[in-house]
Amino acid sequence: MVDIASVSGDERMLADAIERALSIHAPHLEVLRDGDAIVARTRLGRAQRVVIAGHIDTVPVNDNLPSRLEGDALTGTLHGRGTVDMKGGCAVMLALAVALEAPAYDVTWVWYDHEEVEASLNGLGRLARTRPELLAADFAILGEPSNAVVEGGCNGTMRVELRATGRRAHSARAWMGENAIHALATALAALAAYEPRAIEVDGLVYREGLNAVAVSGGVAGNVIPDDAVLTVNYRFAPDKSVAEAEQYLRELFSAAAPELRLTVTDAAGGARPGLDAPLAQHFMAAVGGTPAPKYGWTDVARFAELGIPAVNYGPGDPSLAHTDDERVPVEQIIACERGLRAWLSGA
Amino acid sequence: MVDIASVSGDERMLADAIERALSIHAPHLEVLRDGDAIVARTRLGRAQRVVIAGHIDTVPVNDNLPSRLEGDALTGTLHGRGTVDMKGGCAVMLALAVALEAPAYDVTWVWYDHEEVEASLNGLGRLARTRPELLAADFAILGEPSNAVVEGGCNGTMRVELRATGRRAHSARAWMGENAIHALATALAALAAYEPRAIEVDGLVYREGLNAVAVSGGVAGNVIPDDAVLTVNYRFAPDKSVAEAEQYLRELFSAAAPELRLTVTDAAGGARPGLDAPLAQHFMAAVGGTPAPKYGWTDVARFAELGIPAVNYGPGDPSLAHTDDERVPVEQIIACERGLRAWLSGA
Repeated sequence: MVDIASVSGDERMLADAIERALSIHAPHLEVLRDGDAIVARTRLGRAQRVVIAGHIDTVPVNDNLPSRLEGDALTGTLHGRGTVDMKGGCAVMLALAVALEAPAYDVTWVWYDHEEVEASLNGLGRLARTRPELLAADFAILGEPSNAVVEGGCNGTMRVELRATGRRAHSARAWMGENAIHALATALAALAAYEPRAIEVDGLVYREGLNAVAVSGGVAGNVIPDDAVLTVNYRFAPDKSVAEAEQYLRELFSAAAPELRLTVTDAAGGARPGLDAPLAQHFMAAVGGTPAPKYGWTDVARFAELGIPAVNYGPGDPSLAHTDDERVPVEQIIACERGLRAWLSGA
Repeated sequence: MVDIASVSGDERMLADAIERALSIHAPHLEVLRDGDAIVARTRLGRAQRVVIAGHIDTVPVNDNLPSRLEGDALTGTLHGRGTVDMKGGCAVMLALAVALEAPAYDVTWVWYDHEEVEASLNGLGRLARTRPELLAADFAILGEPSNAVVEGGCNGTMRVELRATGRRAHSARAWMGENAIHALATALAALAAYEPRAIEVDGLVYREGLNAVAVSGGVAGNVIPDDAVLTVNYRFAPDKSVAEAEQYLRELFSAAAPELRLTVTDAAGGARPGLDAPLAQHFMAAVGGTPAPKYGWTDVARFAELGIPAVNYGPGDPSLAHTDDERVPVEQIIACERGLRAWLSGA
């Protein structure tokens, strides 16, 4: 699964492979396709239904494919792009989708596209907008990496552009112009000085983050640039709404760099932990361990918006996601497979 | 001449037109061609020879061709790409090359290509490397825009890249990474705080400049970037060598942002005014006015390297060069034609 590269926008081949595997090996499931998202569900008439979902896309490959197994197949470590985020989880789902013909709850398995790029392209969001009936459930589990323990809720995320406008001139006569790149200096200083806050929500402590993720500007090597843009990503605790997060950024940057224009380009609210739902309690009892907060924004927030309690549970250390040496201990993959199997078998 | 577009790399048609005009109207000149550079010279056996040179290429057209004459043909203003930089000067040269059959000095007229792009392509530089005998002279005049007054020498120019290296991580767990864009903050603050220095050299005051001309960094909207580059252009007075200019930048940025790696990507020394040369004195007496410093780097520095005193003298306001509303008062074109004619006629 890891070795079928599937950088966002290029998921077709992996989606085809999953669809084919299900059609051959899981005749007990109804399989549907929407773009490069695959939905496979039981129709057993159980009293409750759960969604178990994972995205199949990854961030760009950076000389870290094909995958490499260090050690043996049961206790070793699998290295490579996507091993953590989140093909480990996707593989557990595929194995259980095939194996469990009669789970204790009806299950809707969802493998979807475009999670690692702008929110408007997200495959789960597309299903929620266009075919919400496919996601109807009493509880949802997202197989995002969580070191095989239950992680509740998630931080929100917002991207803003800070744009500086100047005046072009020949750089030999710079005093005729106004340098837009220089105008980013105080905003960058504010980012460099930012101290991440830790905020407790429903008993779990969420850590925030504020970072430049892109910067660009420049016309030619001898021209004073009239335009420069700094893109900032804010990860905010689920005690704040999207509007409150925006307000916070507007206050911060209007103090630090009042001449820059701030535009929100992308935002998604967080999700409070939601661990008090009865199915969440039952699930935690089945898989064990102490729940932790989820720092990263994940699609549990989409389920929260649909009114479906949801948690993260998957193999891999989330702090290794997107790093070049992404790697997952095989034992965590096995642990998640056992945990979900125990719960879905009615243990 | 302006309406024959000749953006760098696309000078052939204009070079053809100049060559044809000379072959028809200036039988007293020996005409040579090297790529898209045209060299035309008298062979009168005079005791002294002067080079009068101008580049025929322009920066890219930006909806500012064809040219437009505002007012009448003697007192109006000619608008359009290249009117200032530097087809006004090229036209004066062409008129005088044809008109002056027996100037007081032997004259080598040079129209050349590729001045507005990287130094390695420069047509005058190519002649200096491959056919230096064509440029042999006792004095040189470059028809670069100088508001029709003599501008002595020129500033040097240097471009450096300042590179920050960090460590990638998912932006939801920024504390696992190191943000390379944030690492540019103090270098940008130093640029924003920089006060241009004014330095007197041989009686003329040169104004320096230090500016960011490009900035780039960023991997994806949810990744802490591990690489960011700031490109800086330093325009330095001709009291400093290229090595001294580099030393100045290294000291400035090693104090302001010691973690950045500085690489020189492009450099060209300035030229001291050279106004004490006897032919320069004679020339200034003939054309009148008070000499001024040249801020921009020009090819006078190439003549300085060949040991030939050189000045800038041409129609047009250099601060309008490369602007979209480049425009030249026709009176300045006429003034330059008269000034050079008086001098070359032995006035």
